[in-house]
Amino acid sequence: MNPLRNNIAEMNGYVPGFQPADESAWIKLNTNENPYPPSPKVAEAIRAEVGADGGSLRKYPDAASREMRAAAAELFGVSPDWVISANGSDELLNNLIRAFAGEGEEIGYVHPSYSYYSTLAEIQGARVRTFGLTEDFELADFPERYEGKLFFLTSPNAPLGFAFSREWIAAFAKRCAGMLVVDEAYADFADGDVLDLVREHENLIVTRTFSKSYALAGMRLGLAVARPWVIAALDKIRDHYHLDRLALVAATAALRDQDYLRQTLARIRATRERFTAELRAIGYRVIDSQGNFVFASPPDRDGGRVYQALFERKILVRHFSDPLLAHGLRISIGSESDMETTLAAMREIG
Amino acid sequence: MNPLRNNIAEMNGYVPGFQPADESAWIKLNTNENPYPPSPKVAEAIRAEVGADGGSLRKYPDAASREMRAAAAELFGVSPDWVISANGSDELLNNLIRAFAGEGEEIGYVHPSYSYYSTLAEIQGARVRTFGLTEDFELADFPERYEGKLFFLTSPNAPLGFAFSREWIAAFAKRCAGMLVVDEAYADFADGDVLDLVREHENLIVTRTFSKSYALAGMRLGLAVARPWVIAALDKIRDHYHLDRLALVAATAALRDQDYLRQTLARIRATRERFTAELRAIGYRVIDSQGNFVFASPPDRDGGRVYQALFERKILVRHFSDPLLAHGLRISIGSESDMETTLAAMREIG
Repeated sequence: MNPLRNNIAEMNGYVPGFQPADESAWIKLNTNENPYPPSPKVAEAIRAEVGADGGSLRKYPDAASREMRAAAAELFGVSPDWVISANGSDELLNNLIRAFAGEGEEIGYVHPSYSYYSTLAEIQGARVRTFGLTEDFELADFPERYEGKLFFLTSPNAPLGFAFSREWIAAFAKRCAGMLVVDEAYADFADGDVLDLVREHENLIVTRTFSKSYALAGMRLGLAVARPWVIAALDKIRDHYHLDRLALVAATAALRDQDYLRQTLARIRATRERFTAELRAIGYRVIDSQGNFVFASPPDRDGGRVYQALFERKILVRHFSDPLLAHGLRISIGSESDMETTLAAMREIG
Repeated sequence: MNPLRNNIAEMNGYVPGFQPADESAWIKLNTNENPYPPSPKVAEAIRAEVGADGGSLRKYPDAASREMRAAAAELFGVSPDWVISANGSDELLNNLIRAFAGEGEEIGYVHPSYSYYSTLAEIQGARVRTFGLTEDFELADFPERYEGKLFFLTSPNAPLGFAFSREWIAAFAKRCAGMLVVDEAYADFADGDVLDLVREHENLIVTRTFSKSYALAGMRLGLAVARPWVIAALDKIRDHYHLDRLALVAATAALRDQDYLRQTLARIRATRERFTAELRAIGYRVIDSQGNFVFASPPDRDGGRVYQALFERKILVRHFSDPLLAHGLRISIGSESDMETTLAAMREIG
């Protein structure tokens, strides 16, 4: 008996980054987690919501995430009906496909970027078209006008770390006949972002996650900014109670503590610049990064060799078997001392 | 510009039960929340996970929910690959449609039951067929063999409160050519359940929620038990990190404290029986309930009138405008004192 839809029966599931069981024994630089804890206001807000006996947890959360949306709207200088909250930005990517691309319709994205777009399209039964990158990080063979229903542009790009310029994205939005989703998971670490371009381009949607800059990967939080008609459609598609009470207060507290965010970002960016310079000093090619990771290739362009040698030293980084990426490693920016240890190991490994 | 899929553009969103802003001023019997707090082990587990500074929240949760699944599997006497965790049982209902019913394919359910099935089918672009109930709670006009891809059977039924018998469900599963989902959101309050029938019927899936019996509506937790091939398909469709760290520890702690669950259930069932008898004594027709609510009709069969009079007294119950249901009210079973107050008000209202 197998009455599954064909697309579901035939697809492979997405495999998330490896999480070792004995986590504390490792230096873990493979999933772009933040090395610093979230704002202390987050733990405070969660403790207050839980109270003495968890009594508030018996009640449904606010289905409309009003406080969280208001906090985000204030931060971004938009009205709350331009903002939607989500159970990780993954939920938004999923629901955007459901909103715009039916079975057999096309979505596009850049390869290499986030391969989960492809998984989500397979679940929907939508078609996928990928566009490669030229040497100078332009999209190869992209048509003058792209007719796909949806295009996902990861900027800053992961795993490579470069960002598309504001001007480039503005021009690119006009070449998309359908919707353009700029996945800004890493934008807080970058020199700029395109969130305000949503005002000028009706087909532009910007998604954000709390997993990286806000150090809340464990709480599954994201948001999107777009025109109210897009937000209204996403509101119809999402589970009506998609965020739990603790996630909601955590997100609101994190958004309201921008001082803390700025401090964390400054530390990570400083470590990133230092680490990049040191790696280059030992002969690595490192792409200038706008994220909380770097993509770096050893002199012999054998990323797998270095991955393995680091693994043996209990340092976990990310190596992709994809031929486009196998020459390098994606290394998350951890604490300063973790990066010192990693550098020392890489000097030794050569 | 409206490049939305037609089904999305045309659908109305689901409207969850009304949540008053000044909640504490109300007796709230409209969304079947549990009047008692969750197990004290839940708050303990959350506090332990948050720790002093929320440091663990920077790290991704276990994508496979291994501890929670193991706890559920142990409780139900099945192997963990027969269990999947979820962000509320709503997530499962959604993903079951995505697994089995493509655009234009049919899903079925009983009307009245949970109208959210219909919303989820609209999002997918699937067709919906509903079957009414006869006076003695049989399905009207149900074919000898039902060819829809998926049938949702809410048992105990909400909003009416009766449950289908075990024998009836076993026979019904054989009449379904596609999958039969028994939505057991309220089964913990009932005299029995059909979870173990999953072993005998390959097309049977049982879903559960933590929102009612476990008093964790605020944490968005659910699970399903089914054959491993069904669970594997649902695992491919779900967001890879669908549950946050706090929800995971909350669920595991709740599942492991069955003593507390039994105490809460006994209290609510006792209150339900008393409330039912008292309502009948003042001339209400009350359906014998297997849930944590009752469906009750006043002597004049004008549910709207009583709803309004209770509302004016800051008692919130659920009235459905649907002509099949407008004669009655769905009243959640709250604490003993809340039900006394409600009864006194209903005696006064007449």
